[in-house]
Amino acid sequence: MVPDEWSIIEDSFHPEYNEITESLMSLGNGRMGQRGNFEETYTGKSLLGNYVAGVYFPDKTRVGWWKNGYPAYFAKVINACNWIGIQVEVEGQLLDLYTCRIEAFRRVLDMKRGVLERECTVEMPTGNRLTIRSQRFCNMVDDESGAIRYTIQPLNFNGQITITPYLDGNIRNRDANYDETFWNEIQKETSFAQGILVLETKPNPYGVEQFQVATGMRFDITVNGKRLDFHSHPIRNEKYVAGKVPLKLNERDELTVYKYATNLSSSNHSAGELIPLTKAYLERITKKGYDVLYHEHTQAWAEKWERNDIEIKGDLEAQQGIRFNIFHLQQTYTGEDETLNIGPKGFTGEKYGGVTYWDTEAYCIPFYLSASGQQVARNLLIYRYRQLGKAIENAEKLGFSGGAALYPMVTMNGEECHNEWEITFEEIHRNGAIAYAIYDYIRYTGDEAYLSEYGLEVLIAISRFWRQRINWSEHKKKYVMLGVTGPNEYENNVNNNWYTNYIAAWTLRYTLYAIEYVQKNGDATSIFSKINFDSESEPSAWQKIIDGLHFPYDEVRDVFLQQDGFLDKELLTVDQISEHRPINQKWSWDRILRSCFIKQADVLQGLYFFEDDFDLGTLQRNFDFYEPMTVHESSLSPCVHSILASRLGMKAKAYEMYLRTARLDLDDYNNDTEDGLHITSMAGTWMSVVKGFAGQRVQDGVLVLDPYLPASWESYSFRIGFRGVTLTISVDRDSIRLVNPSDQSVALKIKGTQEDFVGEKVLNLIDQEIVR
Amino acid sequence: MVPDEWSIIEDSFHPEYNEITESLMSLGNGRMGQRGNFEETYTGKSLLGNYVAGVYFPDKTRVGWWKNGYPAYFAKVINACNWIGIQVEVEGQLLDLYTCRIEAFRRVLDMKRGVLERECTVEMPTGNRLTIRSQRFCNMVDDESGAIRYTIQPLNFNGQITITPYLDGNIRNRDANYDETFWNEIQKETSFAQGILVLETKPNPYGVEQFQVATGMRFDITVNGKRLDFHSHPIRNEKYVAGKVPLKLNERDELTVYKYATNLSSSNHSAGELIPLTKAYLERITKKGYDVLYHEHTQAWAEKWERNDIEIKGDLEAQQGIRFNIFHLQQTYTGEDETLNIGPKGFTGEKYGGVTYWDTEAYCIPFYLSASGQQVARNLLIYRYRQLGKAIENAEKLGFSGGAALYPMVTMNGEECHNEWEITFEEIHRNGAIAYAIYDYIRYTGDEAYLSEYGLEVLIAISRFWRQRINWSEHKKKYVMLGVTGPNEYENNVNNNWYTNYIAAWTLRYTLYAIEYVQKNGDATSIFSKINFDSESEPSAWQKIIDGLHFPYDEVRDVFLQQDGFLDKELLTVDQISEHRPINQKWSWDRILRSCFIKQADVLQGLYFFEDDFDLGTLQRNFDFYEPMTVHESSLSPCVHSILASRLGMKAKAYEMYLRTARLDLDDYNNDTEDGLHITSMAGTWMSVVKGFAGQRVQDGVLVLDPYLPASWESYSFRIGFRGVTLTISVDRDSIRLVNPSDQSVALKIKGTQEDFVGEKVLNLIDQEIVR
Repeated sequence: MVPDEWSIIEDSFHPEYNEITESLMSLGNGRMGQRGNFEETYTGKSLLGNYVAGVYFPDKTRVGWWKNGYPAYFAKVINACNWIGIQVEVEGQLLDLYTCRIEAFRRVLDMKRGVLERECTVEMPTGNRLTIRSQRFCNMVDDESGAIRYTIQPLNFNGQITITPYLDGNIRNRDANYDETFWNEIQKETSFAQGILVLETKPNPYGVEQFQVATGMRFDITVNGKRLDFHSHPIRNEKYVAGKVPLKLNERDELTVYKYATNLSSSNHSAGELIPLTKAYLERITKKGYDVLYHEHTQAWAEKWERNDIEIKGDLEAQQGIRFNIFHLQQTYTGEDETLNIGPKGFTGEKYGGVTYWDTEAYCIPFYLSASGQQVARNLLIYRYRQLGKAIENAEKLGFSGGAALYPMVTMNGEECHNEWEITFEEIHRNGAIAYAIYDYIRYTGDEAYLSEYGLEVLIAISRFWRQRINWSEHKKKYVMLGVTGPNEYENNVNNNWYTNYIAAWTLRYTLYAIEYVQKNGDATSIFSKINFDSESEPSAWQKIIDGLHFPYDEVRDVFLQQDGFLDKELLTVDQISEHRPINQKWSWDRILRSCFIKQADVLQGLYFFEDDFDLGTLQRNFDFYEPMTVHESSLSPCVHSILASRLGMKAKAYEMYLRTARLDLDDYNNDTEDGLHITSMAGTWMSVVKGFAGQRVQDGVLVLDPYLPASWESYSFRIGFRGVTLTISVDRDSIRLVNPSDQSVALKIKGTQEDFVGEKVLNLIDQEIVR
Repeated sequence: MVPDEWSIIEDSFHPEYNEITESLMSLGNGRMGQRGNFEETYTGKSLLGNYVAGVYFPDKTRVGWWKNGYPAYFAKVINACNWIGIQVEVEGQLLDLYTCRIEAFRRVLDMKRGVLERECTVEMPTGNRLTIRSQRFCNMVDDESGAIRYTIQPLNFNGQITITPYLDGNIRNRDANYDETFWNEIQKETSFAQGILVLETKPNPYGVEQFQVATGMRFDITVNGKRLDFHSHPIRNEKYVAGKVPLKLNERDELTVYKYATNLSSSNHSAGELIPLTKAYLERITKKGYDVLYHEHTQAWAEKWERNDIEIKGDLEAQQGIRFNIFHLQQTYTGEDETLNIGPKGFTGEKYGGVTYWDTEAYCIPFYLSASGQQVARNLLIYRYRQLGKAIENAEKLGFSGGAALYPMVTMNGEECHNEWEITFEEIHRNGAIAYAIYDYIRYTGDEAYLSEYGLEVLIAISRFWRQRINWSEHKKKYVMLGVTGPNEYENNVNNNWYTNYIAAWTLRYTLYAIEYVQKNGDATSIFSKINFDSESEPSAWQKIIDGLHFPYDEVRDVFLQQDGFLDKELLTVDQISEHRPINQKWSWDRILRSCFIKQADVLQGLYFFEDDFDLGTLQRNFDFYEPMTVHESSLSPCVHSILASRLGMKAKAYEMYLRTARLDLDDYNNDTEDGLHITSMAGTWMSVVKGFAGQRVQDGVLVLDPYLPASWESYSFRIGFRGVTLTISVDRDSIRLVNPSDQSVALKIKGTQEDFVGEKVLNLIDQEIVR
């Protein structure tokens, strides 16, 4: 990939990397998305992928050995109808880049405009040479539609070129558990230059909603810029509609197809109305025409960038990397629909199914809070509130009762979808992250009313879970939590994971605070009565746990212990096993488990979340103990370490960790970009800059900043929204520049000094910290 | 089932229990076996099952989430060609008991003779009434063959009856991972009243041997006892051969089909010779004729019973139960082939695949040692010796080196087949049981030369594994073993499982002894050189582990702790959760893991194996602590507890545990008999009597007996082989009677008194022990 500040550029075709490139060049608009596939037929390596937000299929669980409590199905993001397809025949010969000699090739994802472009010149096996130019986008304004401009130019012949724009629902998820297809055809229609295909997800025995998606297309054709009066022969096959247009072209003629497509799903519309709505939608966007749609779309992106951009000078790769991350985050989730969430692969692949992991709460919410605003983050919280009933059912399946909630590890509709006992049943710290997100949101926005409206019910249900999950150890004379998996998934079924215990006790404390708040400011009585809450016995039981919970600790090193027995391991550092990395590929699972090596921040995740509870010395000792044992084999690991290293003044370490997160996918560090991008960890990259380098925090309603400049950069600059104001922060070698262009002041503490800030401000920056 | 001392009797037809009955009434001869299916067509609930020893298929692994180190395939016992089939048409109507009105029905497994018999009178939907009488056996003498005598008698009509004896290879394993069939047809032949079908296991990508099995049949027909001159029309379909014989019968005529069948496999014969060998085999057995074959077969069973029987008076169900167990053990494994082993289901079903678990070493070897003799047990040891190379490869896959061996959890050919990380990689105590079996065998037989010949290599390889699997804890200043699963599989990934640590240290000690022995008595130098053994550094490293290994211990209760942290659990007893049992069906997996409840003997398994290392007080304290927490949800659990309870004089407990093991399958305690029988746990039942009630031990070459009589019995009597002598031990209310009919004396210690015993001896038995 060619470095470029605003684009991802492939400037010669590499079929061997095509699936990686397709992932990187994915487009989306929060409502639908697709991988960077070619419009015309391609028989080489390719993962054709089109996705519609909120539409999923419950794929029957596949396991080797069943364990009680496993869910019956795994809700999968479904690969949906292919709407970009344009089949091209040249003199009766199918155009397929895999069989052509490529003379010139350039595929560009223009992140500034949210547009995928391609230009290539090829020679077909027949000797016919032609140039293809395509441009397409998933419309950010009319967000159930996309548009393509596809141009073909014969270079060395006059002849017949047949163009067949089509919709194809004969699609299979690559990771289907039993190699089944997930779609049935319901209806189809074709008319002149128009086709509509209504597919429905197959019936399932789990009572899960069946979704209908109507995909529509309309197309238009110009030759040399002039609209053509053409004949379109409709084709109707199983789950397939097309219009076939045979044309005679002369050498150098430019044939352009404009294809407009829509995806309307029954999750947003009444199923019975899908066809008329699709027709109306097609009519509307076709009337606007390609240029207007393009203009509106790029304008919307310009507005997003105006608010979200991080500008880095002096390091082109870092600039490209951070924009790449922000771009995909904004494509994946726009925050307009509280039933949606952020899938681990967004619209860039189907691996891992589901859409909602604890990544949303731990990594994404801080990004959307600053970059997209309060309502977007609030919708992410409400998503979990809406699924509270299912979380209570989920806990009941595992033997909990009385309104205790265990949120799922992976979900679409609130039902647990994961099926590895050590994760599904044991990686319960996720429940804590969901409680923490409420706190984090309120801390940032000041919206304490959220507690009365939604937050308290969720907090009480999670606290009820912790109470039942924790037991009294007569031996230790302490409360203990047995059999858990912490964020470091390279340990399973351990006792007293420090992080999980900490976030559990914290949840109980915060819930007690929330109860008090709502009792004073809200309608606590009706909430208590709704959920049958005993405001005497339950809080007092929680208080006992808060007071008596066991936290493993090493007196010698004065560090928290990841879990009971951690010190029995052979304590090595990562540099002693460099030839064995990545251990998740080179070591057997049991060897990983027995080793001291850590997949991602675990104790340090706790010190990151709850930094105000610990002094810098404690953070430093734990960082120095754990980070050297950490292999960062989760995409979510480097960012937390980068932020902590920034806080500790370990700038070299912070930058090293930043580099590992920022270009993870662009440089295919984990060798899995072909499956799709690591969307949720992209928020971590953003945090590494804003919370790490710029030291952004919110403390007692005050926005805290403590920026420094990474050594290899000339400057960086970003905007954040905070309590109704958009601030610009720019940092270069000598100074920090702050702008609050509004007339509303912001409580700001920068480099230790607090003020009510409005207008513009420049601090001279003399970097006195020691680079470690 | 009707209680009977020698038979299993179903005296009216219960189609709803048919699969259970089929399991119970399975036949086998160590070389081949089959479930108690009907010969004629049956369309009701039935698991048609025919199995050929040593023939398996590598079924591609199916998991939900892949872990490094998982094996690529699961070697499965294959459901093979159905050779019992006789299709019967009456006046053009297929005879199928499922569609008939059953007037009388009796199916009997005659365990004394090893014969399955059935007699029934039915009315077909057409109104035709007939009686069917069948008898069949898997020949114990000509052990690659079986024979059937099948009689039909029309009761109320004259008419056409068409008999089609067939061989059918269109068989599917019910538990195939991907619903595939495992057999291809290679060749088939038919001639008058004879058919041969050669099937081959499908090709596989794992380099696993493909097996060919030639199944042959020949049949003869009599009417009213007179050989008939009949016409047989050959039928040849895909994987199917048959001979169709239309006959005219009069009311009350008795039509009898004699069907002789053979199963020759490429694991015993050259694949190219299978057809001529089959023809010769068929020729030979057909010449003998049914009555001679039957006589030889029942004679062989009489000899087995002469040696193996346990006679119980005063408790018909106990009598039936113990014979049922002995019968199936003898059917499953005869000890004549060192490449075979004892499958968990024998020839009674295909569940769990594989054939070799640690059950063989821990449970079956003691049975075969006493009941079948030294050579049989020795072949079971050599089976593991032959697989040592694979066990070393298996350990290498998991990261071990230098000749360390990890024997598989489940295997056919030495390759690991299991794929649950907590079992496959962590339930490594199995390695210790394989070392222990060597010790156990030598202790019983005195055959110390086995160490030089085979034993030492295995012991060193296992000790090398333990050394690498154990690490030094700088924190504890002790050696520790992290991340294991003990025999109690309701705990996973625990640290310092007491049992595993104990058997590991014991292995190291015993290996040091074995080295010393072979250095004195064998060719240690060439063994050391063959396996590159450093006789200085390796033993000294082992000695350090022996001296410094950590054993979790509770000082308050003075009991060994099942694992580190065990006391942090809420310590309940099984009677407090009676409505939750069985927990493996009623609780989620994580709840089971967090609970204190124990699946099967764990610490107590160690106290059972190594009883001479501990005093009775220690045993009593540990029994009293652990047994009340034990749910006995493994078929291997009650027997160990029964033996220990006997030793502790807890006679009521011993008998309670005995009952749970003795009629496990007969009474379908675990609700899974339809899948097949629990063959390996049957050896535990035998041990409960011989080692439990009769207190049989071997100490320093002396046979120790310390019998008592369970309160509800009148007497019991059994034979055991010991160092060339067969002893009869009979126990009744008043006395113990011992007979050594040989002229060779046996070092015997009974009720504390030692002597060189020959002839006959009666001790008056005054039972002074307290019944608890």
